Amino acid sequence: MTENKIPYKIYLEESEMPQAWYNVRADMPIKPAPLLNPATGEPCTAEDLGHVFCDELVKQELDDTTRYIPIPQEIRDFYKMYRPSPLVRAYCLEEKLGTPAKIYYKFEGNNTSGSHKLNSAIAQAYYAKNQGLRGVTTETGAGQWGTALAMACGYLGLDCKVYMVKCSYEQKPFRREVMRTYGASVTPSPSPTTEVGRKILAENPDTTGSLGCAISEAVEAATTNEGYRYVLGSVLNQVLLHQSVIGMETKIALDKYGVVPDMIIGCAGGGSNLGGLISPFMGEKLRGERDYEFIAVEPASCPSLTRGVYAYDFCDTGKVCPLAKMYTLGSGFIPSANHAGGLRYHGMSPVLSELYHEGLMEARSVEQTKVFEAAEYFARVEGILPAPESSHAIRVAIDEALKCKETGEEKTILFGLTGTGYFDLYAYQKFNDGQMGDYIPTDEELQASFNKLPKVGK
Amino acid sequence: MTENKIPYKIYLEESEMPQAWYNVRADMPIKPAPLLNPATGEPCTAEDLGHVFCDELVKQELDDTTRYIPIPQEIRDFYKMYRPSPLVRAYCLEEKLGTPAKIYYKFEGNNTSGSHKLNSAIAQAYYAKNQGLRGVTTETGAGQWGTALAMACGYLGLDCKVYMVKCSYEQKPFRREVMRTYGASVTPSPSPTTEVGRKILAENPDTTGSLGCAISEAVEAATTNEGYRYVLGSVLNQVLLHQSVIGMETKIALDKYGVVPDMIIGCAGGGSNLGGLISPFMGEKLRGERDYEFIAVEPASCPSLTRGVYAYDFCDTGKVCPLAKMYTLGSGFIPSANHAGGLRYHGMSPVLSELYHEGLMEARSVEQTKVFEAAEYFARVEGILPAPESSHAIRVAIDEALKCKETGEEKTILFGLTGTGYFDLYAYQKFNDGQMGDYIPTDEELQASFNKLPKVGK
Repeated sequence: MTENKIPYKIYLEESEMPQAWYNVRADMPIKPAPLLNPATGEPCTAEDLGHVFCDELVKQELDDTTRYIPIPQEIRDFYKMYRPSPLVRAYCLEEKLGTPAKIYYKFEGNNTSGSHKLNSAIAQAYYAKNQGLRGVTTETGAGQWGTALAMACGYLGLDCKVYMVKCSYEQKPFRREVMRTYGASVTPSPSPTTEVGRKILAENPDTTGSLGCAISEAVEAATTNEGYRYVLGSVLNQVLLHQSVIGMETKIALDKYGVVPDMIIGCAGGGSNLGGLISPFMGEKLRGERDYEFIAVEPASCPSLTRGVYAYDFCDTGKVCPLAKMYTLGSGFIPSANHAGGLRYHGMSPVLSELYHEGLMEARSVEQTKVFEAAEYFARVEGILPAPESSHAIRVAIDEALKCKETGEEKTILFGLTGTGYFDLYAYQKFNDGQMGDYIPTDEELQASFNKLPKVGK
Repeated sequence: MTENKIPYKIYLEESEMPQAWYNVRADMPIKPAPLLNPATGEPCTAEDLGHVFCDELVKQELDDTTRYIPIPQEIRDFYKMYRPSPLVRAYCLEEKLGTPAKIYYKFEGNNTSGSHKLNSAIAQAYYAKNQGLRGVTTETGAGQWGTALAMACGYLGLDCKVYMVKCSYEQKPFRREVMRTYGASVTPSPSPTTEVGRKILAENPDTTGSLGCAISEAVEAATTNEGYRYVLGSVLNQVLLHQSVIGMETKIALDKYGVVPDMIIGCAGGGSNLGGLISPFMGEKLRGERDYEFIAVEPASCPSLTRGVYAYDFCDTGKVCPLAKMYTLGSGFIPSANHAGGLRYHGMSPVLSELYHEGLMEARSVEQTKVFEAAEYFARVEGILPAPESSHAIRVAIDEALKCKETGEEKTILFGLTGTGYFDLYAYQKFNDGQMGDYIPTDEELQASFNKLPKVGK
């Protein structure tokens, strides 16, 4: 390998970093359907949402017309501590695969939260602080979002209460300790600190908890403690807005070198990383300026886009949050064990759901053993140990690059590498020991779940 | 905080990256004392060393006159995957401390090994591959070096046998799994795979192992398997040479902005990171071009520079390696429990030992609870969760910045942030729970250890 014109890693100068987030909804001719108030079945008003979320975030959640929303200086300063993230030209991977394809990835894992989650965590914490609040509450399962929020709150001196699913709290003590080190209080859920927690514990003292229960506790803690609001790390429009910084940085970097991707690939759980990565490119597509192929990759064990239905559903299994119109497997669907915890979500961002519904984006599902094969291959060739979630995108990027090898096409492939797998080594161990399985829900299981969808907002 | 002329992070362009390592020994008027063959008490010849190390590395080990040694293109290509590492201006830390000091740190943790160790691992693996060897062997305790070597070997397709101290193998399964994911074979030491291992197991079947024993097994595996050599992650001259890339990048970045540090601070275990960071600056000092203050920071529990003696000693507790003249606590000294595993080494690089002996460098020892206080403070303010080892440097950098606050001096402080603490969360948990102690050896303990130093090469 010799010197190349395009460097291995493209870093923007600080002066080139985005000064505004891009709101893709502004360019969507058909807007995502509004959130519904579960009590009334009517679209949520700013007042409805203001009980749970900060005022400025409610505005962002409901704003589907403003194209660019300025990033406050304080958030831009925080971004400078870990951004710009590198856009990497995967020379080594290309060479090893022997593909004529050109592969790029935007790497969001070079911060202590280990993922892109920090981009929205600092924004949400900032607006909470700015509103004079004392703190925020949230839930966490795998722990990446909780870590990101703890970091943002630690920096701003904001109180942070994290409800962590009890089995994760016990099985992932290191994740818990990172959050504590950043000053967050981490409570195993269900807990005796909330009414809903006490009720669940009374009924089932030995429960190891669930994400649905943790959300319910976090929302209760936010609405019953003076000066607190609830924050969420994915799915919501506001989160995709904040994550647009990923795509904007990527586009600026590619434009500098005159590179135009043919396809853009990202893993999709709630949709925050994929939505952020593709947004400015999707904007061009929506405005008819340029065409791209977008591919959402999800686990075969939790295939909301590829096998779900497009309908109104609860965002949480506890049914305390608003209803969203989205591709969903049903809020009661419990995906079988999969090591990509961040992709084990029953629904999908309403923005991405609408784009997918209109055929502007494709989706594929992949099995986890194939994902870990790609992850291990990538780690050895490119050096970075990827998160299981991110490795879904790696799998499809490699598959596409191998297709190019067959056809001889010199496609330019861009994918999002959302995070690192340093806290996922139990999963790698299972894979290394040949003990990892694949789990695919049956049609009957899915149909049974669809039958329980709420009968509102059709 | 507003826009500043110097960015938060300075990244070099690829074209600015060093093309040669800097060999500080070439500028030392008094050279480090030669390694001695333990059998003869005579200086080691290239032939002696060639049984254990690769030929090219033996040359580098013995070369104290060539100032610049070119970095082979293949290694420079590998460096481009994770380097240049950022030189960070700690604006947030400065502001929080309210200090007039200007603080910079060179962050080496943004790679999967989580530390600077990869800089030498890829070099050593490359020369082994280039010599047509099948593989390399090494030992690992905490696991950073083993991970870095596994990554380098995985990339080059070289076999990698790691002997991991048995208690670490069992207590740090995640470190073990990273190495396995990169294709290394990881053997708990002592093991039945070597003669020395079998002997120890026969005598003491329940032993949890020691670094000394793991070194002995790794050296035996290297010398008894056809096509293998032994590699080591610190202490040796060759390792400091490879690590000079840290200091060279730092100096190029500072020069671009016309910044001259007043003091340069680094943690010191075997000395590889500190030696690498300071080398080009030390070169200027040795050549009389510019003066700097250099501070080595070591744990109070293992104070080789501040309380050790300058004498010939074994590099390993198993006494199979050559003798080196260095500041040492005695190769039989067993430091009390300290969570900075990478600093629990009885000796110090011969290069740094000589520089310290001549008064060209200072040293300080710090207690681990104070170190973790600094680590947690830094994590919250600068976002990065630091390794316990690196946090020794943070502690002294903060202390010095606070002195500036008192005196009003606008000193420029540079320190090395060698790695991240993602695999050290058990230690953080101890600290968060208020269960961390400090351990300082008594004068009597040290004297007893000094009494056992070998009686050679005085």
